[in-house]
Amino acid sequence: METKNIGLRGIEVADTRISNIDGEKGKLIYRGYDILELTKNSTFEETAYLLLYDKLPNRNQLDEFNAKLIDARFIPKQMQKNMGNWRKDADPMDMLQAFVAALAGYYDEEFANKEASYDKAINLIAKVPTIVASWNRIRNGLDIVDPDPTLSHAANFLYMMSGKRPDPEVEKIFDVCLILHADHTFNASTFTARQVASTRAHMYSACSAAIGALSGELHGGANTEVMKMLLEIGDIEKVEEWVKKEMSEGNRIMGMGHAVYKTYDPRAQVLKELSRKLAEKTKDPWFDITEKIEVTTISEMKKQKGKDIYPNVDLYSASLYYMLKIPMDLNTPIFAISRVVGWAAHIIEEKFAEAAPKPALYRPKATYVGKYCGPEGCEYQTLDLRK
Amino acid sequence: METKNIGLRGIEVADTRISNIDGEKGKLIYRGYDILELTKNSTFEETAYLLLYDKLPNRNQLDEFNAKLIDARFIPKQMQKNMGNWRKDADPMDMLQAFVAALAGYYDEEFANKEASYDKAINLIAKVPTIVASWNRIRNGLDIVDPDPTLSHAANFLYMMSGKRPDPEVEKIFDVCLILHADHTFNASTFTARQVASTRAHMYSACSAAIGALSGELHGGANTEVMKMLLEIGDIEKVEEWVKKEMSEGNRIMGMGHAVYKTYDPRAQVLKELSRKLAEKTKDPWFDITEKIEVTTISEMKKQKGKDIYPNVDLYSASLYYMLKIPMDLNTPIFAISRVVGWAAHIIEEKFAEAAPKPALYRPKATYVGKYCGPEGCEYQTLDLRK
Ligand SMILES: CC(C)(COP(=O)(O)OP(=O)(O)OC[C@H]1O[C@@H](n2cnc3c(N)ncnc32)[C@H](O)[C@@H]1OP(=O)(O)O)[C@@H](O)C(=O)NCCC(=O)NCCS
Ligand SMILES: CC(C)(COP(=O)(O)OP(=O)(O)OC[C@H]1O[C@@H](n2cnc3c(N)ncnc32)[C@H](O)[C@@H]1OP(=O)(O)O)[C@@H](O)C(=O)NCCC(=O)NCCS
Repeated sequence: METKNIGLRGIEVADTRISNIDGEKGKLIYRGYDILELTKNSTFEETAYLLLYDKLPNRNQLDEFNAKLIDARFIPKQMQKNMGNWRKDADPMDMLQAFVAALAGYYDEEFANKEASYDKAINLIAKVPTIVASWNRIRNGLDIVDPDPTLSHAANFLYMMSGKRPDPEVEKIFDVCLILHADHTFNASTFTARQVASTRAHMYSACSAAIGALSGELHGGANTEVMKMLLEIGDIEKVEEWVKKEMSEGNRIMGMGHAVYKTYDPRAQVLKELSRKLAEKTKDPWFDITEKIEVTTISEMKKQKGKDIYPNVDLYSASLYYMLKIPMDLNTPIFAISRVVGWAAHIIEEKFAEAAPKPALYRPKATYVGKYCGPEGCEYQTLDLRK
Repeated sequence: METKNIGLRGIEVADTRISNIDGEKGKLIYRGYDILELTKNSTFEETAYLLLYDKLPNRNQLDEFNAKLIDARFIPKQMQKNMGNWRKDADPMDMLQAFVAALAGYYDEEFANKEASYDKAINLIAKVPTIVASWNRIRNGLDIVDPDPTLSHAANFLYMMSGKRPDPEVEKIFDVCLILHADHTFNASTFTARQVASTRAHMYSACSAAIGALSGELHGGANTEVMKMLLEIGDIEKVEEWVKKEMSEGNRIMGMGHAVYKTYDPRAQVLKELSRKLAEKTKDPWFDITEKIEVTTISEMKKQKGKDIYPNVDLYSASLYYMLKIPMDLNTPIFAISRVVGWAAHIIEEKFAEAAPKPALYRPKATYVGKYCGPEGCEYQTLDLRK
């Protein structure tokens, strides 16, 4: 393999106004605003508005946006029925990818103008949590819980999933998690969404594809892997030995390391503090175990390779969600509940970029390194002559 | 927009052994074999084997492969039921994207080893036609036609779709169409499939995403657009005026032009001859109208811009499928029936590339051109202060 652009690292493919990572300083910016500022002052709904419309809403705009989101929370009854026909042990990400694509079968407004795209974006942001929560009820043989229009986006999801309205502290923690995951420039799923949209496929199609990318264990799947690791280790006393063994065998510690941040991921920082606070309340061991993994990986990395390594967004979200009693395999769907905002904003940007030259359908090159029998190709042998 | 790599044109992202386009000479090679050679001598099943396994099969290998494909043609009854719950006017590509993702809910063999991936590939290649044909029956209120194990892949699809076994000439034509569309290196949908697979998402997930990309009118959707254009023009006498008007308004003629071929697309050449032959038999006007569009676009292009332009794969496939009495909106799903072979081969190559360095998750860069209020970000105004 002689290819120069492995994983497209460092290759600039488009301009964006949506978000920016400063990997050296460890900063993440949404539409000009520092993510830390937003987690302190904003809500998920307001942040979603910001990411979609390139400005923070005023009171009227936010009220209208909220009302639309609340209105759009229901999913069609037919869709609930179809979920009931799935195997109860199906992966929720597979289910989500399929049902987001299926939304196109129910809502097919023309995607010719920008306004319709925003409506689709709102429809998606509102319905993805309902799909995830409904499936969680169905697979457990429980009645579906209808959305509660009096609850915030964050609280309503937890309510639809568990049947219980969360207390304000839990609601706030979950809201911050949603803000933190909403966008991250051209990560693998967002780039997938933009790529599918670049063919002029519609928004449901592009978001469904993005969910597929997010489901991979190297991307969104990593937080489920982190929780599996925590459960496997199980005891703070065993962390050191476990991490050392894994690293000496050349395995990667899930939740550690990042392709872009060369310092502490600001999201990991916020999640770490939330996880610490929650663990003090619940008396769960998971925060301490996670912190020990962090410390051990950092020191092992220094020892083995003389390099720095830092936690990424998945390290502390895993234990946090676990303490919030969210089933482990919903970690990645929850990532999607938040990231769908970023996908939608990027799809709109990809399709309606006003600056010239317009973005074009992504079609990179590959180097052919296969069989070559001269310019006319290999000689075709008839079936019975072949070995 | 200052970005240098619009649409990633010319950017090499990976090595591949699967196929190669010689855009200057107008040649397409699958695993060393010229596509023209394969359309003359091979069958879709044999070509699929070639693309997946990097060699033409011997008799035993082909028999075994065929038997597996035939066995895997059925789709679960639950899935048929779920299709019945869709709106009858849903886009078949949306349906296909959703139900290919849904296959993961029924078939979840571990995707940890190469053998399991080949089994998934076979399952997909076998089931995609059944999904498309079943939906076509359901939406028309007709009974689903079960696959016929005595028929070839090509004939069986036409049979499941229409309820009639095709005559050998039609079967052969359709088989050649399937061979021609099976792979085309790193086009938008294949790159999407590889990208999703690069996160280690499974094969159904990656193929579902690829279907999303294929559904865009700039990619697979173009052949449906071609047929719409033919129907809109309707009469060979109107072609010249229509093409001139469109081009003078700066609109693109669907089915003409290609990003990579700088001469006649070899697939278009084959399809043109098949279409000509079929039109002689059916006495349809569509071949002649299409040829007139080709000729007119070429001469207008010369006149207006002094440039050459050639038909692409979609120009003649549109009328060909129409004469085969395939509903127009199944043109792109039929593209998928064939291309799923290429996607599967590319996904396997992406995941199990034996050479080092291993392909990495695709994560390109974007240039942030949005709001900037200094390194600390913009100042957050509270809601009621905003205009
Ligand atoms: C995210 C990730 C792919 C970043 O990749 P990257 O920036 O390309 O980093 P590299 O692969 O170049 O890693 C640099 C070195 O650190 C090591 N390293 C990186 N992440 C590591 C981890 N989590 N555990 C142990 N070692 C790690 C690599 O082995 C490499 O060593 P080498 O130089 O001897 O080959 C990588 O850190 C990783 O796989 N992390 C675990 C999975 C995870 O949590 N993913 C979620 C990301 S949000
Ligand atoms: C396929 C396609 C995107 C190729 O793009 P490309 O190689 O990047 O070609 P360019 O966009 O650079 O086109 C070169 C010139 O030919 C013109 N052109 C290209 N395809 C044209 C078409 N189908 N009709 C009219 N003019 C066309 C372009 O306007 C451009 O003119 P300019 O140099 O004055 O801007 C383009 O030909 C197209 O849009 N075709 C119609 C859609 C279609 O059939 N797609 C299916 C492809 S398999």
